[in-house]
Amino acid sequence: MTAPQSSLFNSSSWVIPTLDKQCIATIDGRINSKTKPLGALGKLEDLARQLAQIQWQQNQPTDNIQIHQPCMLIFAGDHGIARNGISIAPPEVTGQMVLNFLAGGAAINCFCRTVNMDLRVIDAGMLQAATIQHEKLSEKRVGEGTGDFSAVPAMTLVQAEQCLKYGAEVAQQQISAGSNVLAFGEMGIGNTSSASALLSLLADLPPQQTVGKGTGIDEAQYAKKLQLIQQALQRVSDNHGDSVQSPSVALSEVGGFEIAQIVGAMLATAEAGKIIIVDGFIVSVAALIATKIAPLSRQFMIFAHTSAEQAHEKVLQLLGAKPLLSLDMRLGEGTGAALALPLLQAAASFYNDMATFESAQVKV
Amino acid sequence: MTAPQSSLFNSSSWVIPTLDKQCIATIDGRINSKTKPLGALGKLEDLARQLAQIQWQQNQPTDNIQIHQPCMLIFAGDHGIARNGISIAPPEVTGQMVLNFLAGGAAINCFCRTVNMDLRVIDAGMLQAATIQHEKLSEKRVGEGTGDFSAVPAMTLVQAEQCLKYGAEVAQQQISAGSNVLAFGEMGIGNTSSASALLSLLADLPPQQTVGKGTGIDEAQYAKKLQLIQQALQRVSDNHGDSVQSPSVALSEVGGFEIAQIVGAMLATAEAGKIIIVDGFIVSVAALIATKIAPLSRQFMIFAHTSAEQAHEKVLQLLGAKPLLSLDMRLGEGTGAALALPLLQAAASFYNDMATFESAQVKV
Repeated sequence: MTAPQSSLFNSSSWVIPTLDKQCIATIDGRINSKTKPLGALGKLEDLARQLAQIQWQQNQPTDNIQIHQPCMLIFAGDHGIARNGISIAPPEVTGQMVLNFLAGGAAINCFCRTVNMDLRVIDAGMLQAATIQHEKLSEKRVGEGTGDFSAVPAMTLVQAEQCLKYGAEVAQQQISAGSNVLAFGEMGIGNTSSASALLSLLADLPPQQTVGKGTGIDEAQYAKKLQLIQQALQRVSDNHGDSVQSPSVALSEVGGFEIAQIVGAMLATAEAGKIIIVDGFIVSVAALIATKIAPLSRQFMIFAHTSAEQAHEKVLQLLGAKPLLSLDMRLGEGTGAALALPLLQAAASFYNDMATFESAQVKV
Repeated sequence: MTAPQSSLFNSSSWVIPTLDKQCIATIDGRINSKTKPLGALGKLEDLARQLAQIQWQQNQPTDNIQIHQPCMLIFAGDHGIARNGISIAPPEVTGQMVLNFLAGGAAINCFCRTVNMDLRVIDAGMLQAATIQHEKLSEKRVGEGTGDFSAVPAMTLVQAEQCLKYGAEVAQQQISAGSNVLAFGEMGIGNTSSASALLSLLADLPPQQTVGKGTGIDEAQYAKKLQLIQQALQRVSDNHGDSVQSPSVALSEVGGFEIAQIVGAMLATAEAGKIIIVDGFIVSVAALIATKIAPLSRQFMIFAHTSAEQAHEKVLQLLGAKPLLSLDMRLGEGTGAALALPLLQAAASFYNDMATFESAQVKV
């Protein structure tokens, strides 16, 4: 059974603007008038073009690319499959790391401070709710961890839909508070297994091509992870036949609460015409699902980095994405997305403030 | 004739500390105690290790990597070979761009503002001195542009030595003012020709492997650039035989005032035990020369990015360098080096401030 017509899994539920293509010529004219050889800023020129095009829609023409209150949204959730011991850490670590985020001690906290980015944590459904209240923590719990998808569906269709709704609310709230750039991160022991299984279903790829070593498991754990995911894919295929590529089927069968909420949050961000910074493998799988639900969401996505997780390249290819950074990182949390923010700011800065050949009286 | 024993071209003229290798185990212990899987921050861990090792020397043990008043030093010079029309712009543009730097309108100004890095411009020997005085401009003129090295030596050995001295003075002054991270940039129409010829001499590579299209010349200009450089290499080989790999011979025969001053500035920075951020092709060739004069200088170098200039990869290989960024940029000015600064700050931040498994009570 796939989602009903009224579902948030249907494209028509999301009203995402189509960006003006006419404006590209004007934007390129502006970029090419700057005091530099044509194209000499490489990927930063592509980035400036995309940012200017996104904002053209709203304040045409884009004289200044604006980056307001960039915010990192870290969605956390637990995974039933993690009980099989296929991660480097036990499931309890999801909750412990969330407390670490709230205390400011994790890598993502360090990087957000470095780049001056705000950070929020969303409990999308950890095993246990956090024992503390904190202004940076939002409760959007859809359950106490997902079902072990090697044996049973990860969640119900109702829960999957609830995730899209909750994610969208989180993004809308942050946008209402003044952010026009949202970066996405995740925390969830076992969530590379979920992301790999999602990728296998959505792109019809064998698990050998989608399953990696996560943050660093050994060979025996890898073999078990592969076997459990194969088992899950067989189960889903038996139950759903040709519908396995449906985002609602894939997310409910093998997804994660945090992954599904990121999908909803990205779609709401695109709907609002704001900028999405995509982190590594898991967040990129969420981005892929968002584009399957509403292809126009792709226009608003900036891909921060290529992670060391082997299947990330595959997801990026499917999305036609060429990430900004490649630092051999495999941590998640949004760490790659945070590190990309200064490149967005640099692109905005040259687009906004760099002199033209005429204004600087440079005669080539 | 190569440089005399007392010359700044001799290794013994530079007293560069040998970094403690014993401390690596302690540094790695600290990095590995942080709340993240082993190695999960990839290149940023290598970067933190290098930064901590550099600073261990001075304040052992390195509890906090410190980044103080990072400063971009842009050395500008003109090149006689540019009169042959093998660049995208006429030689006058060097001086016009220096005025653009001082007015704050160039790409490097935008990027330095984005990353909060100070900037200074050094006139190492432009065709004409700048017509204005400016607090950000240092006069270290060694001549009115170099000789056209396709026909005559670019400069005398005395001038080359003077360049090392001036460059060292600039770096020392900036370090005295409180900077412990110096980034290097350059401006000089024609200076990719000089850098290519230097690389051919120093690494015994045919010009087909070292000559690129600079910031964007056409096929006819490329053919002429190649032919002039071939002619220069032949001339130098005829005059110097086996001594062509000597830094003093190479710099005086085919170098540039700005390139030679960067060499001196890097050596002085290494002598002071401070951090060097290396930009693209031209600055990397200066780094290669610095390591040929004093190999210990390599310890202090961070390589910011891989530029789109084809021979840059070759220089990086010779230096054993794996740059942080790869953004298809080919602008120079120090633009890649400026964009790398946030990554140094992120590495310092996680090394300094990230919680340990123990402190965060995370139990894996």
